[in-house]
Amino acid sequence: MDTLTTQKLQTYQTKIQDILTHYYETTLQAKQAQGQTDPADQLSFDNQRHQYLWFCSGWDGKKRIQHISMYLKIKDQKIWVEEDNTDLGLVDALLAADIPKSDIILGFQHPSKRTLTEFAVA
Amino acid sequence: MDTLTTQKLQTYQTKIQDILTHYYETTLQAKQAQGQTDPADQLSFDNQRHQYLWFCSGWDGKKRIQHISMYLKIKDQKIWVEEDNTDLGLVDALLAADIPKSDIILGFQHPSKRTLTEFAVA
Repeated sequence: MDTLTTQKLQTYQTKIQDILTHYYETTLQAKQAQGQTDPADQLSFDNQRHQYLWFCSGWDGKKRIQHISMYLKIKDQKIWVEEDNTDLGLVDALLAADIPKSDIILGFQHPSKRTLTEFAVA
Repeated sequence: MDTLTTQKLQTYQTKIQDILTHYYETTLQAKQAQGQTDPADQLSFDNQRHQYLWFCSGWDGKKRIQHISMYLKIKDQKIWVEEDNTDLGLVDALLAADIPKSDIILGFQHPSKRTLTEFAVA
Protein backbone atom coordinates (compact mmCIF):
# COMPACT_ATOMS: atom_id res chain seq x y z
CA MET A 1 0.00 0.00 0.00
CA ASP A 2 1.54 3.35 -0.97
CA THR A 3 1.75 6.34 1.38
CA LEU A 4 -1.15 8.25 -0.13
CA THR A 5 -3.41 5.23 0.16
CA THR A 6 -2.36 4.62 3.77
CA GLN A 7 -2.98 8.28 4.63
CA LYS A 8 -6.44 8.20 3.08
CA LEU A 9 -7.32 5.01 4.96
CA GLN A 10 -6.18 6.47 8.28
CA THR A 11 -8.09 9.70 7.63
CA TYR A 12 -11.27 7.75 6.87
CA GLN A 13 -10.78 5.54 9.95
CA THR A 14 -10.46 8.61 12.18
CA LYS A 15 -13.42 10.44 10.62
CA ILE A 16 -15.72 7.42 10.96
CA GLN A 17 -14.74 6.89 14.60
CA ASP A 18 -15.22 10.59 15.39
CA ILE A 19 -18.69 10.62 13.82
CA LEU A 20 -19.90 7.40 15.49
CA THR A 21 -18.45 8.47 18.88
CA HIS A 22 -20.25 11.81 18.62
CA TYR A 23 -23.62 10.16 17.89
CA TYR A 24 -23.06 7.53 20.58
CA GLU A 25 -22.13 10.07 23.29
CA THR A 26 -24.95 12.46 22.40
CA THR A 27 -27.48 9.62 22.47
CA LEU A 28 -26.11 8.26 25.76
CA GLN A 29 -26.34 11.68 27.42
CA ALA A 30 -29.92 12.12 26.18
CA LYS A 31 -30.94 8.70 27.54
CA GLN A 32 -29.27 9.36 30.89
CA ALA A 33 -31.00 12.75 31.09
CA GLN A 34 -34.29 10.84 30.66
CA GLY A 35 -33.40 8.67 33.65
CA GLN A 36 -31.98 5.56 31.97
CA THR A 37 -29.22 4.43 34.31
CA ASP A 38 -27.64 1.77 32.11
CA PRO A 39 -28.27 2.41 28.39
CA ALA A 40 -27.61 -0.60 26.15
CA ASP A 41 -25.54 1.40 23.63
CA GLN A 42 -22.07 0.08 22.72
CA LEU A 43 -19.28 1.10 20.35
CA SER A 44 -16.98 -1.37 18.62
CA PHE A 45 -14.17 -0.21 16.31
CA ASP A 46 -11.94 -2.72 14.52
CA ASN A 47 -9.19 -0.97 12.52
CA GLN A 48 -7.74 -4.28 11.37
CA ARG A 49 -10.97 -5.50 9.73
CA HIS A 50 -12.22 -1.91 9.11
CA GLN A 51 -15.52 -2.51 10.91
CA TYR A 52 -17.18 0.34 12.84
CA LEU A 53 -20.33 -0.28 14.86
CA TRP A 54 -22.63 1.54 17.22
CA PHE A 55 -25.13 -1.00 18.48
CA CYS A 56 -27.43 -1.76 21.40
CA SER A 57 -27.37 -4.92 23.49
CA GLY A 58 -28.75 -5.00 27.00
CA TRP A 59 -31.87 -4.64 29.09
CA ASP A 60 -34.58 -1.96 29.23
CA GLY A 61 -36.35 -3.13 32.38
CA LYS A 62 -37.39 -6.71 31.57
CA LYS A 63 -37.17 -6.23 27.81
CA ARG A 64 -34.13 -7.42 25.90
CA ILE A 65 -32.71 -4.80 23.50
CA GLN A 66 -30.61 -5.86 20.52
CA HIS A 67 -30.06 -3.93 17.31
CA ILE A 68 -27.40 -2.26 15.20
CA SER A 69 -27.86 1.53 15.15
CA MET A 70 -25.08 2.37 12.70
CA TYR A 71 -22.56 0.19 10.90
CA LEU A 72 -19.86 1.41 8.54
CA LYS A 73 -17.00 -0.47 6.94
CA ILE A 74 -14.09 0.53 4.74
CA LYS A 75 -13.46 -1.66 1.70
CA ASP A 76 -11.34 -0.89 -1.37
CA GLN A 77 -10.64 2.64 -0.02
CA LYS A 78 -14.36 3.45 0.10
CA ILE A 79 -16.78 3.90 2.97
CA TRP A 80 -19.74 1.52 2.94
CA VAL A 81 -22.77 2.71 4.92
CA GLU A 82 -24.21 -0.70 5.78
CA GLU A 83 -26.71 0.24 8.49
CA ASP A 84 -28.26 3.49 9.68
CA ASN A 85 -31.34 2.79 11.73
CA THR A 86 -31.53 6.36 13.06
CA ASP A 87 -32.75 9.69 11.76
CA LEU A 88 -29.52 11.46 12.69
CA GLY A 89 -28.29 12.01 9.12
CA LEU A 90 -25.20 9.80 8.97
CA VAL A 91 -24.56 10.27 5.25
CA ASP A 92 -24.82 14.06 5.63
CA ALA A 93 -22.24 13.87 8.43
CA LEU A 94 -19.86 11.97 6.13
CA LEU A 95 -20.30 14.59 3.41
CA ALA A 96 -19.78 17.39 5.96
CA ALA A 97 -16.50 15.65 6.92
CA ASP A 98 -15.31 16.20 3.32
CA ILE A 99 -15.74 12.61 2.14
CA PRO A 100 -16.66 12.76 -1.56
CA LYS A 101 -19.82 11.03 -2.81
CA SER A 102 -17.62 8.93 -5.11
CA ASP A 103 -16.09 7.33 -1.96
CA ILE A 104 -19.43 6.58 -0.25
CA ILE A 105 -21.45 3.46 -1.01
CA LEU A 106 -24.97 3.07 0.34
CA GLY A 107 -24.62 -0.63 1.17
CA PHE A 108 -28.07 -0.72 2.78
CA GLN A 109 -29.55 -0.17 -0.68
CA HIS A 110 -29.77 -3.17 -2.97
CA PRO A 111 -26.96 -3.13 -5.60
CA SER A 112 -29.55 -2.85 -8.38
CA LYS A 113 -30.83 0.44 -6.89
CA ARG A 114 -27.45 2.07 -6.23
CA THR A 115 -27.19 3.26 -9.82
CA LEU A 116 -30.20 5.52 -9.14
CA THR A 117 -28.25 7.54 -6.54
CA GLU A 118 -25.46 10.10 -6.80
CA PHE A 119 -23.23 7.85 -4.68
CA ALA A 120 -20.72 5.18 -5.71
CA VAL A 121 -22.07 1.80 -6.86
CA ALA A 122 -19.21 -0.38 -5.47
CA MET B 1 -3.45 -3.07 36.35
CA ASP B 2 -1.01 -5.65 37.75
CA THR B 3 0.78 -8.24 35.63
CA LEU B 4 -1.45 -11.15 36.56
CA THR B 5 -4.57 -9.15 35.70
CA THR B 6 -3.08 -8.05 32.36
CA GLN B 7 -2.13 -11.62 31.53
CA LYS B 8 -5.62 -12.89 32.31
CA LEU B 9 -7.19 -10.17 30.17
CA GLN B 10 -4.93 -10.98 27.22
CA THR B 11 -5.61 -14.71 27.58
CA TYR B 12 -9.38 -14.09 27.58
CA GLN B 13 -9.09 -11.72 24.59
CA THR B 14 -7.20 -14.37 22.61
CA LYS B 15 -9.54 -17.22 23.56
CA ILE B 16 -12.65 -15.24 22.64
CA GLN B 17 -11.20 -14.23 19.27
CA ASP B 18 -10.12 -17.82 18.54
CA ILE B 19 -13.57 -19.19 19.35
CA LEU B 20 -15.50 -16.57 17.33
CA THR B 21 -13.09 -16.89 14.38
CA HIS B 22 -13.54 -20.66 14.37
CA TYR B 23 -17.36 -20.39 14.33
CA TYR B 24 -17.25 -17.63 11.70
CA GLU B 25 -14.92 -19.55 9.36
CA THR B 26 -16.78 -22.84 9.72
CA THR B 27 -20.10 -21.12 9.00
CA LEU B 28 -18.66 -19.22 6.03
CA GLN B 29 -17.27 -22.41 4.50
CA ALA B 30 -20.61 -24.21 4.97
CA LYS B 31 -22.50 -21.33 3.29
CA GLN B 32 -20.04 -21.20 0.40
CA ALA B 33 -20.32 -24.98 -0.03
CA GLN B 34 -24.09 -24.43 -0.36
CA GLY B 35 -23.45 -21.97 -3.19
CA GLN B 36 -23.66 -18.62 -1.37
CA THR B 37 -21.08 -16.46 -3.13
CA ASP B 38 -21.09 -13.50 -0.75
CA PRO B 39 -22.21 -14.47 2.77
CA ALA B 40 -23.18 -11.52 5.00
CA ASP B 41 -21.09 -12.72 7.96
CA GLN B 42 -18.63 -10.26 9.52
CA LEU B 43 -16.23 -10.28 12.47
CA SER B 44 -15.40 -7.21 14.54
CA PHE B 45 -12.92 -7.36 17.43
CA ASP B 46 -12.19 -4.27 19.55
CA ASN B 47 -9.48 -4.98 22.14
CA GLN B 48 -9.63 -1.41 23.45
CA ARG B 49 -13.35 -1.54 24.33
CA HIS B 50 -13.29 -5.36 24.80
CA GLN B 51 -16.12 -5.94 22.32
CA TYR B 52 -16.17 -9.11 20.21
CA LEU B 53 -18.83 -9.61 17.55
CA TRP B 54 -19.76 -12.05 14.83
CA PHE B 55 -22.69 -10.54 12.99
CA CYS B 56 -24.44 -10.57 9.61
CA SER B 57 -25.10 -7.54 7.45
CA GLY B 58 -25.65 -7.85 3.73
CA TRP B 59 -27.93 -9.23 1.03
CA ASP B 60 -29.35 -12.69 0.44
CA GLY B 61 -30.73 -12.13 -3.04
CA LYS B 62 -33.16 -9.22 -2.62
CA LYS B 63 -33.57 -9.73 1.12
CA ARG B 64 -31.63 -7.58 3.57
CA ILE B 65 -29.90 -9.60 6.32
CA GLN B 66 -29.00 -7.96 9.64
CA HIS B 67 -28.48 -9.68 12.96
CA ILE B 68 -25.90 -10.34 15.65
CA SER B 69 -24.93 -14.04 15.76
CA MET B 70 -22.61 -13.90 18.77
CA TYR B 71 -21.51 -11.01 20.97
CA LEU B 72 -19.10 -11.28 23.89
CA LYS B 73 -17.55 -8.54 25.98
CA ILE B 74 -14.99 -8.49 28.79
CA LYS B 75 -15.88 -6.34 31.80
CA ASP B 76 -14.31 -6.41 35.26
CA GLN B 77 -12.10 -9.39 34.24
CA LYS B 78 -15.14 -11.49 33.37
CA ILE B 79 -16.58 -12.68 30.08
CA TRP B 80 -20.14 -11.56 29.40
CA VAL B 81 -22.03 -13.70 26.87
CA GLU B 82 -24.40 -11.01 25.59
CA GLU B 83 -25.76 -12.70 22.46
CA ASP B 84 -25.73 -16.23 21.10
CA ASN B 85 -28.35 -16.63 18.41
CA THR B 86 -26.93 -19.94 17.22
CA ASP B 87 -27.09 -23.56 18.36
CA LEU B 88 -23.32 -23.97 18.20
CA GLY B 89 -22.75 -24.18 21.96
CA LEU B 90 -20.79 -21.00 22.68
CA VAL B 91 -20.83 -21.37 26.47
CA ASP B 92 -19.59 -24.96 26.19
CA ALA B 93 -16.73 -23.71 23.99
CA LEU B 94 -15.76 -21.18 26.67
CA LEU B 95 -15.76 -23.89 29.34
CA ALA B 96 -13.73 -26.20 27.05
CA ALA B 97 -11.19 -23.34 26.75
CA ASP B 98 -10.67 -23.56 30.54
CA ILE B 99 -12.62 -20.43 31.46
CA PRO B 100 -14.18 -21.07 34.89
CA LYS B 101 -17.95 -20.65 35.37
CA SER B 102 -17.19 -18.00 37.99
CA ASP B 103 -15.73 -15.83 35.19
CA ILE B 104 -18.67 -16.27 32.78
CA ILE B 105 -21.80 -14.14 32.97
CA LEU B 106 -24.86 -15.02 30.89
CA GLY B 107 -25.72 -11.41 30.02
CA PHE B 108 -28.56 -12.53 27.71
CA GLN B 109 -30.41 -13.73 30.80
CA HIS B 110 -32.19 -11.10 32.88
CA PRO B 111 -30.16 -10.20 36.01
CA SER B 112 -33.02 -11.52 38.20
CA LYS B 113 -32.65 -14.99 36.61
CA ARG B 114 -28.86 -15.24 36.75
CA THR B 115 -28.92 -16.39 40.36
CA LEU B 116 -30.70 -19.56 39.15
CA THR B 117 -27.65 -20.63 37.11
CA GLU B 118 -24.24 -22.01 38.03
CA PHE B 119 -22.59 -19.03 36.34
CA ALA B 120 -21.51 -15.66 37.77
CA VAL B 121 -24.21 -13.06 38.47
CA ALA B 122 -22.13 -9.94 37.63
